[in-house]
Amino acid sequence: MNNKELLSAANKKIKQLQGYNRSSKKRREAGVFVAEGIRLCREVPDKYLTEVYLTPDLEGEADALKAPYFLVDGAVFSKISDTQTPQGILALCSRPEYRFDDILGDGKHTPLVVVLEDIQDPGNLGTIMRVSEAAGVTGVIMSRGCADIFSPKAVRATMGAIFRVPFIVTEDIEASISDLKAKGVTVYAAHLKGSEDYAKLDFKKPSAFLIGNEGNGLKDETAALADKRLFIPMEGQIESLNAGVATAVLVYEAHRQRA
Amino acid sequence: MNNKELLSAANKKIKQLQGYNRSSKKRREAGVFVAEGIRLCREVPDKYLTEVYLTPDLEGEADALKAPYFLVDGAVFSKISDTQTPQGILALCSRPEYRFDDILGDGKHTPLVVVLEDIQDPGNLGTIMRVSEAAGVTGVIMSRGCADIFSPKAVRATMGAIFRVPFIVTEDIEASISDLKAKGVTVYAAHLKGSEDYAKLDFKKPSAFLIGNEGNGLKDETAALADKRLFIPMEGQIESLNAGVATAVLVYEAHRQRA
Repeated sequence: MNNKELLSAANKKIKQLQGYNRSSKKRREAGVFVAEGIRLCREVPDKYLTEVYLTPDLEGEADALKAPYFLVDGAVFSKISDTQTPQGILALCSRPEYRFDDILGDGKHTPLVVVLEDIQDPGNLGTIMRVSEAAGVTGVIMSRGCADIFSPKAVRATMGAIFRVPFIVTEDIEASISDLKAKGVTVYAAHLKGSEDYAKLDFKKPSAFLIGNEGNGLKDETAALADKRLFIPMEGQIESLNAGVATAVLVYEAHRQRA
Repeated sequence: MNNKELLSAANKKIKQLQGYNRSSKKRREAGVFVAEGIRLCREVPDKYLTEVYLTPDLEGEADALKAPYFLVDGAVFSKISDTQTPQGILALCSRPEYRFDDILGDGKHTPLVVVLEDIQDPGNLGTIMRVSEAAGVTGVIMSRGCADIFSPKAVRATMGAIFRVPFIVTEDIEASISDLKAKGVTVYAAHLKGSEDYAKLDFKKPSAFLIGNEGNGLKDETAALADKRLFIPMEGQIESLNAGVATAVLVYEAHRQRA
């Protein structure tokens, strides 16, 4: 392999990358995902970095990245890019894998968990990972019905949190909630018909927030598993908050109380 | 005019609507904007509702809306729709117009103002309006460099808050900040290099939050006008929060303190 030779659009690796961008199934089967853009590539931990693809003008970036790299011209890069204005660099990454206990943190911090049910928008999902890292969330549990966190748009929206916040995708959200409770975590359902104002609750002990789908909120049977239903008070005529915004308000209130 | 006659794609009104969806300038010159979707149309106050366009299956919706309506078939509606899966109804609206003093509220509530500098993403802008209404913000000031709040995407993201939260677009953000201070409002700049933790500040008095551009934050000269620079503490390696998320955390902290 000669790194200095430009890969053509017909190259098998290029075809594979196109598949990874488009298909959740192809990503999953290969156990990979794509992180695109200069800042995001710099944040890929060595252990997840598999290969780097970049345009020749960015070859200097490759020096700092501990992985084989491949050069492509701008036209070919546009084929493997998921963005409208490609920066000219992407990393093929292996997937972080966590066990349930990782979600509860490293033992140094009180568990603070976000449980997501069927969040549909990849941007929302990524934003939630980003704010979760910022607020010190120890881990995120996603239902199988959530958007694919490894989709290019979700990955970009995490701003690198995908490499640092432990997360699992669960086939059985009810079992995961039971597991949290068994570990001594108080589970709060964010619910429009919640009975307790979030700002009057105590999140200093191990806590988890259940956040529902953008359009429908939590399923009744999921909300019923929580220890408490909380609400975020809303003035005016707003009927609900964006899922990312609601998560942000809750995890930062927990952060504030714990500070 | 016969409301029962389907308008053709060549109709002048249809051409105009296409222009309003695409062009900020055309909207501005006509003093109008478009609100699309069943829920949003139901939220348009009578005083702003000018005309309704809908597919025949939704004609029942028109009964509740106090404005002339026009029927179009699905194919024509798709031409005047800004969404990928049109619901088949939109309202042409006149624009809410506010004076500076409206931003400070109706006198019953302590002023809580959000000042936005060059927010680029229409979705962010709409989300900020939505969470602002929910948290009881009395008004929003946008710099001229912000995305157009009357763009179809921004309007949808407001979830109707565009009709209820007073806002102005200012040519001179520095003058607007001075005006706020002259009215006794304490102005806080949200800044990555802020010196005060937002959670330790008192927002029970009249307060305004300056929120900067997604990529660059506030301009130095704008931040310098604030009474105080605050920061939102961030764990992990996250460098910044999404502008909508940062706004949400701040306005809900103010709401919590005032409750």
